[in-house]
Amino acid sequence: MTLKFGLLGAGRIGKVHAGAVAASSGAKLVAVADALPDAAQAIARTSGAEVRSVEAIINASDIDAVLITTPTDMHADMIEQAARAGKAIFCEKPIDLSVERVRRCLDVVRAEKAPLMIGFNRRFDPNFRAARARIDAGAVGEVEMVSITSRDPGPPPVAYIARSGGLFRDMTIHDFDMAAFLLGEDPVAVFAAASNLVDPAIGAAGDVDSASLVLTTKSGKIAQISNSRRATYGYDQRIEVHGSKGMVSAENLRETTVEVANASGYLRDPLMNFFMTRYTQAYANEIAAFVEAVAAGRPMTPSGEDGFKALVMADAALKSLKEGRQVEIVY
Amino acid sequence: MTLKFGLLGAGRIGKVHAGAVAASSGAKLVAVADALPDAAQAIARTSGAEVRSVEAIINASDIDAVLITTPTDMHADMIEQAARAGKAIFCEKPIDLSVERVRRCLDVVRAEKAPLMIGFNRRFDPNFRAARARIDAGAVGEVEMVSITSRDPGPPPVAYIARSGGLFRDMTIHDFDMAAFLLGEDPVAVFAAASNLVDPAIGAAGDVDSASLVLTTKSGKIAQISNSRRATYGYDQRIEVHGSKGMVSAENLRETTVEVANASGYLRDPLMNFFMTRYTQAYANEIAAFVEAVAAGRPMTPSGEDGFKALVMADAALKSLKEGRQVEIVY
Amino acid sequence: MTLKFGLLGAGRIGKVHAGAVAASSGAKLVAVADALPDAAQAIARTSGAEVRSVEAIINASDIDAVLITTPTDMHADMIEQAARAGKAIFCEKPIDLSVERVRRCLDVVRAEKAPLMIGFNRRFDPNFRAARARIDAGAVGEVEMVSITSRDPGPPPVAYIARSGGLFRDMTIHDFDMAAFLLGEDPVAVFAAASNLVDPAIGAAGDVDSASLVLTTKSGKIAQISNSRRATYGYDQRIEVHGSKGMVSAENLRETTVEVANASGYLRDPLMNFFMTRYTQAYANEIAAFVEAVAAGRPMTPSGEDGFKALVMADAALKSLKEGRQVEIVY
Amino acid sequence: MTLKFGLLGAGRIGKVHAGAVAASSGAKLVAVADALPDAAQAIARTSGAEVRSVEAIINASDIDAVLITTPTDMHADMIEQAARAGKAIFCEKPIDLSVERVRRCLDVVRAEKAPLMIGFNRRFDPNFRAARARIDAGAVGEVEMVSITSRDPGPPPVAYIARSGGLFRDMTIHDFDMAAFLLGEDPVAVFAAASNLVDPAIGAAGDVDSASLVLTTKSGKIAQISNSRRATYGYDQRIEVHGSKGMVSAENLRETTVEVANASGYLRDPLMNFFMTRYTQAYANEIAAFVEAVAAGRPMTPSGEDGFKALVMADAALKSLKEGRQVEIVY
Repeated sequence: MTLKFGLLGAGRIGKVHAGAVAASSGAKLVAVADALPDAAQAIARTSGAEVRSVEAIINASDIDAVLITTPTDMHADMIEQAARAGKAIFCEKPIDLSVERVRRCLDVVRAEKAPLMIGFNRRFDPNFRAARARIDAGAVGEVEMVSITSRDPGPPPVAYIARSGGLFRDMTIHDFDMAAFLLGEDPVAVFAAASNLVDPAIGAAGDVDSASLVLTTKSGKIAQISNSRRATYGYDQRIEVHGSKGMVSAENLRETTVEVANASGYLRDPLMNFFMTRYTQAYANEIAAFVEAVAAGRPMTPSGEDGFKALVMADAALKSLKEGRQVEIVY
Repeated sequence: MTLKFGLLGAGRIGKVHAGAVAASSGAKLVAVADALPDAAQAIARTSGAEVRSVEAIINASDIDAVLITTPTDMHADMIEQAARAGKAIFCEKPIDLSVERVRRCLDVVRAEKAPLMIGFNRRFDPNFRAARARIDAGAVGEVEMVSITSRDPGPPPVAYIARSGGLFRDMTIHDFDMAAFLLGEDPVAVFAAASNLVDPAIGAAGDVDSASLVLTTKSGKIAQISNSRRATYGYDQRIEVHGSKGMVSAENLRETTVEVANASGYLRDPLMNFFMTRYTQAYANEIAAFVEAVAAGRPMTPSGEDGFKALVMADAALKSLKEGRQVEIVY
Repeated sequence: MTLKFGLLGAGRIGKVHAGAVAASSGAKLVAVADALPDAAQAIARTSGAEVRSVEAIINASDIDAVLITTPTDMHADMIEQAARAGKAIFCEKPIDLSVERVRRCLDVVRAEKAPLMIGFNRRFDPNFRAARARIDAGAVGEVEMVSITSRDPGPPPVAYIARSGGLFRDMTIHDFDMAAFLLGEDPVAVFAAASNLVDPAIGAAGDVDSASLVLTTKSGKIAQISNSRRATYGYDQRIEVHGSKGMVSAENLRETTVEVANASGYLRDPLMNFFMTRYTQAYANEIAAFVEAVAAGRPMTPSGEDGFKALVMADAALKSLKEGRQVEIVY
Repeated sequence: MTLKFGLLGAGRIGKVHAGAVAASSGAKLVAVADALPDAAQAIARTSGAEVRSVEAIINASDIDAVLITTPTDMHADMIEQAARAGKAIFCEKPIDLSVERVRRCLDVVRAEKAPLMIGFNRRFDPNFRAARARIDAGAVGEVEMVSITSRDPGPPPVAYIARSGGLFRDMTIHDFDMAAFLLGEDPVAVFAAASNLVDPAIGAAGDVDSASLVLTTKSGKIAQISNSRRATYGYDQRIEVHGSKGMVSAENLRETTVEVANASGYLRDPLMNFFMTRYTQAYANEIAAFVEAVAAGRPMTPSGEDGFKALVMADAALKSLKEGRQVEIVY
């Protein structure tokens, strides 16, 4: 059986998912829609899909599943329409920047019993996934503390900052989800310290670019997150999980294993510095997992609920930052 | 412009190259031939190519280039036929196990001015290629000494050993080519020490499975090669190049960057242990380089001559092993 | 010129400093005092020093400097007496568990113009010191974020916990000092999350054993600290400093560089797991720095003031933990 | 019981051993001799030993053991005299540059039943020793192949080259001993390739400075050695031992664990580049092992016989280089 996809949004990340569908043996891209006809055409040409309208795709009888990779403010509406049309749904994070909007959207999804996966791609990174598997196999005993380092190579354009929802909803949201994924227990309180150190324009836009956050769970587990919008040495993505019996970590990725040694020392490559390259395998694994879950009728992970929780954590972090105190997280 | 390929040989490595052609934007697989119809059909099905006979492919007017991935003893004949038919040729190593046969085959290739690339895939490994690029950029000064570690995860079936031409022509041949590639100068003498330590059946078949070789060039550069048919920790493929100003090295590859730490120590993954996985990117880069070279009308690297030289080194190494002395390499 | 030392306290750490004095070319141990005569005798025997009373040492005319390595509750009194007696003073951290007591003690030190160094040995670790030197040389640009990982191999006896002043005053105090050392700017606010995960007896004693702390400075720099009383893989002591131009890190130490590889993977040694072994070189460097500073009449670093500041941070952290909010640090 | 030492030769390495004796609890330096009175005085001053003549030391009744660290051409005579005087003897490598002279010297040692240890310090390096211990514990199964990388930071003065006995007797001799130590079986054949690439003056002095050697044992084990008189990145001292069940390796040492990361990459320290610093711990362990062996009346390792064997290998390697063939090693 082949799962037939419609792609809503033909931008950068849409192209990545179109490629993942093409590479997947159980999937096929049937149609693509975008406000910019050229973008849709470009994907149509290389994939053999047709260009259609969003409505046509959502209501098509020859399409089983939609990939939503449009701008964030269209996600929730599209999810609801697709759920009502009986489609399986893969939606990029975040579902929406408003917790209330997300709540209502998920009510529709639940009512329609629509399969919904949220694009927290990092859960599918082979390294982070292997770390989680080691934890599940008991390699570190009971999980106690998690440390997540997540630093972007460089800040996005300020225009993007303005509509991003801010550092916590845009960037840390991945780390909130990763924290929950690795802790194996939902955080119930958050503290956030943050500054504007990288680019004054980000501060002028009312956002921060450097942050340290601490999450705690009911049983006393602790996760710390270190964020920055700049890392001159590449895209810094590391985790450490400390448990009662040991530690498991996953390190960064480089283009090559080459090292040059001379009187100055031993020089390795900087890190991969583009998220699409760094997470190439994660994007492919993510779509494969979606296809498998639909085929098997299995619950989706990460679910709409996971997307909701990460957003709730982001909102609580923002409140913590404003109030200079630890804030309870109420899902 | 799209380069149209015919594939001769639908075995394991043929499938890899078919995949690389499919993934290449400037290339298309048109036809496939194999003595086993099922094997050819399998590739045809997934690639959209037709099944044809070898002769039909070599003489087809809708085919520009052939990929020769048949058993070794058919390589030289096919190269000659394809050269005479005006095709661009990619042939797996080795061209033949007989130096004389290779010499005659290359005479035909030269007479027909046929473009010919030999599948020394390791030159296209991103790590080894980057090491070579650093050398070319002057990072280590004048190259002086090269060290190649090349150890297979486990021995092949004894039946394979029998028709392989022996360790030096089958396995070390890659390292001979890599030594020349990294030295930037043809070796003129070789010494080989070797033993049968891994599997007595290999010894019974008249072959060795563990070897240390030393190559020297006219200007006094030295390369050492360490070979084994067994490495419990994975497929061990490393290089070091020492020059007047420093050293460049390329390390092994692992599936993940995960490390588990406890009272026993810090445990990383074993190495990737299958050559096709280890060299996935190299195989893709190799076909892309072939396509580009044909399109640009550029000379092929590694050339038929490179294939010839590696075989001459292998023969000299065998003579060295038998006679217990350093043997001159005459190309 | 040779600096003549009296040692007050012949316990474990006293022995380490006695050894450092013996190994220092410009220093000599003249006398040692301890409530347990056997302990004092043991050091006297191997060092050639005499056993004397505390008072005799502090008032001796043949002694230039005292090393205070007694239990914490005697530190402040001894510092004051030694200051009044005109001695140069090296005192183990902390000066006292009470900020008020420390304040009064330092008033005396200042009034007497006594040279006083506090034993924050980690500043003298070759790795952390080299990291600081790289920062000073501009290698990372302007410092922005610091990450300190500090995890003990195992919890101390509960009896020790009771009189230790708690995790923050006993263990994190080193990290508070290291944070200030690496930030190059005094923290002005702290947040602490902490749990009792390692040993229920520690919780029963009213203390925590696992903590994550965030410090911020006036200019917006951020430091995070990760603490645990247990690390099965050894004594985990790492730092990372992120700046506008790059990152500098210092890694853990192992007994050997040996690695064993087989089908299970690549296994390195666990970390050195005893603080005296891990910081052997730091202890030696520390005494050498003290001797040099006395000889040159240079100000001491880390100073009594540094000791005071670290304790103030610890108290603020404790308050933060109790109140669940970020607490201002007022020195 | 304290072992009383006389030191013959107060040069650079004599000073190191004097320090090791001073740091050893069961040993004491009583006297020192050197042709240069100032050198002897310098050691006497810091150690509390007396300056005496060589003859006086060898025949002293208050001295149990001699440390011979004079120039090589005096070693054999001194060993014989000390053996006849009933002393335990520690002698720096090599015993002599002439195999015949060594043979006669060891005849005397055997006749006198004198305890004799040869200063192959690398056997006492904590890393190499731990590697050997892992092998003994079965971590790699049956040893099959050994790889030794041994590259000096820079060439010695040409004046030294002239009297050194050449690369194989001066530098590779350590690696010959290490090969035997790691193989656990005496090599029976050697092949050497070598060039003059580093410094033309070395070639003018009739020596080589870059070499690759292959040793084989009767059971078919193979060791390869890579030597150079230059390594811009420090003193390169590594081993790998491959066995039927896995591999054990020991890596180089650095001054610090610091790494700086920026857009150029990740830069670690170059290697320790002075042999005395690199092997500080090995020198201390070596003297401690000598003291223990004398105290326990245990056979010495490495023995005079080990010193003899390494020299025989060096001579065979020289013959191999001249004749371009593998040469049998006859002890």
